[in-house]
Amino acid sequence: MIERYQTELMNQIWSERNKFQTWLNVELAVCRVWNEKGVIPDEALAEIVDRADFDVQRIAEIESQVHHDMIAFVSSVSEKIGDAGRFVHLGLTSSDVLDTASALLLRQSLDVVIEETEGLAADLLDQAWRYKETLCVGRTHGIHGEPTTFGLKLLNHYDQLTHDLRRLCAARESIGYGKMSGAVGTYAHCAPEIEARVCALLGIKAAPISTQVIQRDRHGEVMMTLSLLGTALERLSLEIRHLQRTEVREAFEPFGKGQKGSSAMPHKRNPILCERVCGMARLLRAYGQTALENVALWHERDISHSSVERIIWPDAFHLVHYALRISRKIVRNLEVDEARMKQNLEMTQGLVFSQRVLLELVERFGLSREEAYSIVQEQAMRCWRGEGHFRDLLLADARLKNRLSSLQMEALFDVGHYTRYVDTIFSRFPKS
Amino acid sequence: MIERYQTELMNQIWSERNKFQTWLNVELAVCRVWNEKGVIPDEALAEIVDRADFDVQRIAEIESQVHHDMIAFVSSVSEKIGDAGRFVHLGLTSSDVLDTASALLLRQSLDVVIEETEGLAADLLDQAWRYKETLCVGRTHGIHGEPTTFGLKLLNHYDQLTHDLRRLCAARESIGYGKMSGAVGTYAHCAPEIEARVCALLGIKAAPISTQVIQRDRHGEVMMTLSLLGTALERLSLEIRHLQRTEVREAFEPFGKGQKGSSAMPHKRNPILCERVCGMARLLRAYGQTALENVALWHERDISHSSVERIIWPDAFHLVHYALRISRKIVRNLEVDEARMKQNLEMTQGLVFSQRVLLELVERFGLSREEAYSIVQEQAMRCWRGEGHFRDLLLADARLKNRLSSLQMEALFDVGHYTRYVDTIFSRFPKS
Amino acid sequence: MIERYQTELMNQIWSERNKFQTWLNVELAVCRVWNEKGVIPDEALAEIVDRADFDVQRIAEIESQVHHDMIAFVSSVSEKIGDAGRFVHLGLTSSDVLDTASALLLRQSLDVVIEETEGLAADLLDQAWRYKETLCVGRTHGIHGEPTTFGLKLLNHYDQLTHDLRRLCAARESIGYGKMSGAVGTYAHCAPEIEARVCALLGIKAAPISTQVIQRDRHGEVMMTLSLLGTALERLSLEIRHLQRTEVREAFEPFGKGQKGSSAMPHKRNPILCERVCGMARLLRAYGQTALENVALWHERDISHSSVERIIWPDAFHLVHYALRISRKIVRNLEVDEARMKQNLEMTQGLVFSQRVLLELVERFGLSREEAYSIVQEQAMRCWRGEGHFRDLLLADARLKNRLSSLQMEALFDVGHYTRYVDTIFSRFPKS
Amino acid sequence: MIERYQTELMNQIWSERNKFQTWLNVELAVCRVWNEKGVIPDEALAEIVDRADFDVQRIAEIESQVHHDMIAFVSSVSEKIGDAGRFVHLGLTSSDVLDTASALLLRQSLDVVIEETEGLAADLLDQAWRYKETLCVGRTHGIHGEPTTFGLKLLNHYDQLTHDLRRLCAARESIGYGKMSGAVGTYAHCAPEIEARVCALLGIKAAPISTQVIQRDRHGEVMMTLSLLGTALERLSLEIRHLQRTEVREAFEPFGKGQKGSSAMPHKRNPILCERVCGMARLLRAYGQTALENVALWHERDISHSSVERIIWPDAFHLVHYALRISRKIVRNLEVDEARMKQNLEMTQGLVFSQRVLLELVERFGLSREEAYSIVQEQAMRCWRGEGHFRDLLLADARLKNRLSSLQMEALFDVGHYTRYVDTIFSRFPKS
Repeated sequence: MIERYQTELMNQIWSERNKFQTWLNVELAVCRVWNEKGVIPDEALAEIVDRADFDVQRIAEIESQVHHDMIAFVSSVSEKIGDAGRFVHLGLTSSDVLDTASALLLRQSLDVVIEETEGLAADLLDQAWRYKETLCVGRTHGIHGEPTTFGLKLLNHYDQLTHDLRRLCAARESIGYGKMSGAVGTYAHCAPEIEARVCALLGIKAAPISTQVIQRDRHGEVMMTLSLLGTALERLSLEIRHLQRTEVREAFEPFGKGQKGSSAMPHKRNPILCERVCGMARLLRAYGQTALENVALWHERDISHSSVERIIWPDAFHLVHYALRISRKIVRNLEVDEARMKQNLEMTQGLVFSQRVLLELVERFGLSREEAYSIVQEQAMRCWRGEGHFRDLLLADARLKNRLSSLQMEALFDVGHYTRYVDTIFSRFPKS
Repeated sequence: MIERYQTELMNQIWSERNKFQTWLNVELAVCRVWNEKGVIPDEALAEIVDRADFDVQRIAEIESQVHHDMIAFVSSVSEKIGDAGRFVHLGLTSSDVLDTASALLLRQSLDVVIEETEGLAADLLDQAWRYKETLCVGRTHGIHGEPTTFGLKLLNHYDQLTHDLRRLCAARESIGYGKMSGAVGTYAHCAPEIEARVCALLGIKAAPISTQVIQRDRHGEVMMTLSLLGTALERLSLEIRHLQRTEVREAFEPFGKGQKGSSAMPHKRNPILCERVCGMARLLRAYGQTALENVALWHERDISHSSVERIIWPDAFHLVHYALRISRKIVRNLEVDEARMKQNLEMTQGLVFSQRVLLELVERFGLSREEAYSIVQEQAMRCWRGEGHFRDLLLADARLKNRLSSLQMEALFDVGHYTRYVDTIFSRFPKS
Repeated sequence: MIERYQTELMNQIWSERNKFQTWLNVELAVCRVWNEKGVIPDEALAEIVDRADFDVQRIAEIESQVHHDMIAFVSSVSEKIGDAGRFVHLGLTSSDVLDTASALLLRQSLDVVIEETEGLAADLLDQAWRYKETLCVGRTHGIHGEPTTFGLKLLNHYDQLTHDLRRLCAARESIGYGKMSGAVGTYAHCAPEIEARVCALLGIKAAPISTQVIQRDRHGEVMMTLSLLGTALERLSLEIRHLQRTEVREAFEPFGKGQKGSSAMPHKRNPILCERVCGMARLLRAYGQTALENVALWHERDISHSSVERIIWPDAFHLVHYALRISRKIVRNLEVDEARMKQNLEMTQGLVFSQRVLLELVERFGLSREEAYSIVQEQAMRCWRGEGHFRDLLLADARLKNRLSSLQMEALFDVGHYTRYVDTIFSRFPKS
Repeated sequence: MIERYQTELMNQIWSERNKFQTWLNVELAVCRVWNEKGVIPDEALAEIVDRADFDVQRIAEIESQVHHDMIAFVSSVSEKIGDAGRFVHLGLTSSDVLDTASALLLRQSLDVVIEETEGLAADLLDQAWRYKETLCVGRTHGIHGEPTTFGLKLLNHYDQLTHDLRRLCAARESIGYGKMSGAVGTYAHCAPEIEARVCALLGIKAAPISTQVIQRDRHGEVMMTLSLLGTALERLSLEIRHLQRTEVREAFEPFGKGQKGSSAMPHKRNPILCERVCGMARLLRAYGQTALENVALWHERDISHSSVERIIWPDAFHLVHYALRISRKIVRNLEVDEARMKQNLEMTQGLVFSQRVLLELVERFGLSREEAYSIVQEQAMRCWRGEGHFRDLLLADARLKNRLSSLQMEALFDVGHYTRYVDTIFSRFPKS
């Protein structure tokens, strides 16, 4: 991932150094277990544990010759250890180490993502409660629909994130499997009990069956989960971009002191963070797609997935983490213009109450739905054309004359009617 | 979906008729609950229940005028019912019915898919047990690796399907939510308790929060789960395509009596079913991708997802069901040439035992891994070049002279060594 | 494609009947050429030409037995012809007919798409000229930027379509290749001159080289071109959706007499056509993606692309044609509220002129860009906060006191400055 | 892009330094033209040209404050220049510089890709001519079909690359457009003739119309072209992976001296380069997909495409260039086992001649196609089952008794028949 979108935590996980360190942790766990089984003598193990290390430079050097990074790594470790080094990688095939280590790295990454998602969810919940009663218009198709509150909007995003958290936890479980079953999955050189013990030492489970590799649908599930999480962030950012439009101006992402919106137009204040997140969601979708193409490998494995994974794993986790953090920044520092929300709600001169009028005509006055719809639609279209406040137009409609009094009409145009279940909805969610 | 790839069960679910029937079921459930609440009088309800019906032709007619399929549907139903028809759709917005009904349709579809996946899994398990001991070569990168058994190959595919089943069940849970919260999710015209009761009647849960629609990540999860299932079928089909290659000829998809493989070449017997499944997996990936683009709707909803869903929901379910059924047919009628498997295993003259020799030299004779690797690789390359059986070449190597006796060598080339944990692995899975 | 989104012209092309007819046309062309070469006797050719026909029912019947649609087709044709029927398909392999016929079908479809795209381009050009001088605000990031005209907006979309037309023509050329080179591309049973003559008769070129099939990058190019065209339609629809927002209300897609926007809210007038097109663009992207996965076939061909193509070719062409037609309907019947455009342009009280002020301060008064930017931004932010008209705030700024007179300021706020090159831009394009 | 898959040439183009240098080149061209127009005095221009430079560190510093990289860049340049620095960026909006510079960078990248693709094409052509007469079996569905030559296989890949070259050149043309039309495309602060002159100085054309940005379908076309090129490389690599299978062993990617195929199995020689290329093709597809999602921006632009482009442009070009170079290495050093090809061709004991027998029976002996097919298929299936050489089985078939003599049969099994048009096909292509 380009530096601009890296995060420190993901850098720690996906650095070349940490990758090799994780490989080494797996190799060491294997050595320990071979020692438990009496294969590696105590002194040799002591030597191994004591001197186990690697040299990134040296690995690159060897790899340029053998064209195989795991072999280069093992050679470098062996050189560091000296004599006992020959026990390192004993009975293993590269993928035993690689796939097991990848499970650990993906888990670490998921842990970071889960924590940050929980953080964003909490931020959203806070803001949802804060704006629980803040009236604003609900829009469908970009057109004003009926009144709602800004808190309900945010709470809906919070709720969606809880789905993501459920999926992230499932993916974390799904990816937490290691394997030591060797070149084609038969445990030819490393018995199942070794695998079981090594995985236990590393805090993951042993795959019930494997080829040379862990099946790639597990990794596909992780990536798809990130793609889906990306769409949640995209939806949130899209909402704010819409609310920040000049004609709407209801909410604004934070704008730093000293920030410049445009090199040319000093008046600009653009929702660039939200736009950035939207772009990132596209990338997360794309990475997920490649992960799905990685599942159908040949026979007991081919290595076509490897170049893809070297790129998309760190890139996707950097991006999703970056996008989560930026989303948190946006949510926590969101500027909300409540007065403007109210103003926008009233902009359409009562049109947002059209359904209530319709229902009243059907329910209380026994008009057929068809007939009522036709009357209400007709007056609504006049109101759109600027011919008056919707209520007044209705009151003046001859067909409704002896039906709705001015007083009753006032009641129908009461925004309180629309918010009477806000508390009920909020009561289904945690307090912030 | 084109007729060729439709399945009868999916046709039943995704027919225009069943769609409207499901909408009607939702509308009726709502009427019942309004009746419970005293809003719809008993007689009116009786009339509604008695006469509730729709006319597909009439709906099309009305839709061509109002450009809104739900309104057309409700009108048609009302017409059928007569006077009490005005209570139909009371307090509802189209999406209350549509999204709730979609949850039901997607669930029904998932139930079919889950059952068929369980069936395929069972078929695979059967065949895995049947070929548990059938020796064959394990291949990585398309190159012979080490011995394995055909049963293990199949068992691995079985295991992957169990991941899919887990995900399918999670998706089934995820999609099982209805909503009656109205135009923007505030329950303005239909109280939360109505929603709760209606959903209960329909056997699903009420969404804890909704806009005009249920959040689309739920639907995205369903589609992504089908994409992932597609990759499992793709991997299985790809395996068989490889095994059916003329040079390999270890397994064959069924070839019907009277079937013709090629219009031009009468000798052809092609794995066309497996190839077909591979193509379908591509489509399932693509449908999943569009579902992800559907998540970030504007504000309380826009309708850009609708055209997509009208297409991809039936298409994806038809395809995945078709591909599952064809996969079952393939698995159950798979022709396996065990003799040929054995022959292929021996084709490389002992090369597949190279790792064991390597390990023996390291573990028992104390050669460094580097040194041992170099000797074994050198003789292996000679063997590839056809200079003799690998065992003989090793025995003739001066550097190994006083190390490996002919007898020891024989032991190293024992295929039984590679299958000694087959029972262990199978013991982790159900009996067929 | 579901009926709802089919178009009549695409139905004609992609019907089962027309597919078989096109196959028959290819077979007949081959017969004619074999006759020219003296292989098929004149009487036999006469018989063939006279009786050549097929029976869709009968083809299905045979296919259910031989599992091969081309063989079934040829058998049905042969049956119809009688004795001379044995000459049909002489020296051919299925793909000779299939790929050559597909080239014809794809070309026909592209011709329809090209014509409709030209139509849409012409419609856009018309409307662009019509609204050439219609002032409106240009928006970047959804935030008001500087004045522009509505005609320029439309002209930009027109221009993009000309790129699509260029690509469509290139794709048309690219796909216009047939082949008769047989089972693996060697012309083993049908000489190159036959292929050349047949293709000439059919109005396409002979592929310079082929395997059993025409390389799939040609088809991939066609599908990608449709994907790109989809994005043009998506951009146009997105623009209108934004302009139709309640807060913006500058332009509206047509709303039929009798149309209902919402089953619940009679006041709604939603941009559902535009939203539909946006959804379709997602599908077109997805179909393009599968076409790319179809390119890398095994050796001289595998058939994994076939199930995909059976679906995506008609589906993509139906959708793109439908979306084009609906886009034309939208463009031709677009309702434009010019007064509202002007009103929106003035909504920000002069802010849209900020760049001109900035430049004036730099160019004429020698302020550094930094300093000028800082002053202008500061006053702009006050204006955003509603503290006054931007011009007045600037005039009151002490730092600008002896610099910009009220008169000069007025000149800077002249919208004519922004439209002075509109004619120049339009002069680069055809008159409507 | 991760270091492992970077190429030096792409690094030169896509380095931070070269990006800023290209921006500077654009800014300087603009200054020159302002000078020509008399706006920037000669001395100021001299000063600008003389001192124009930037400081990457300083840019980062400023950006962290203003959150806008172009503003930070311009500030840094101005600082370097001193007084005359205020003329830099005169009348421009960021995208004028950015999009124009991007056109230059994408062009440079395309030039590299085109040259490398031409190189690969030339390599393929060389090898095609070299193996023009090398007999091998043509395979469809992975099943032996009919004889062909290895040269024809390679020539087909060469031919496909010529399509890619055509598309690459079209994309190069399509992307070669700059713009100086300002914030919303009206040339409000920089006249069209400035734009024309600047673009001419930079060797590109001026966009006939633009918003704040160049329409993104141009960039989409570039990315899709790379996606398609990726599929060509994927197809080539897939072919070699198949040919290198242990059971096939007809061709091998180069295997370095000292290279190790597997950490565990010293005998392994895996087609890892080809597999790597296949993985990269997946990524190129995915990057193309995101480019398509970038086209439909809001109004006169939003910036959601920016994060995507910062990543996919360098990443896609690095990958495609890397994959091209590795493909050239593979093609140039391909090891071909001609003896093995011949052996495989004969492996099926004459089955590959089945079509010729079929045609002979139809054409010369007047059997109906149906009847002939049935006989030939029956004997072919016996041959598959190992019951004898296909020729012998046919000769022994009572139904063919008085039809095909042993001598005639021999003639039908002549491989020369299949290669008689090889020269014809090659004659359509350049000599190597």
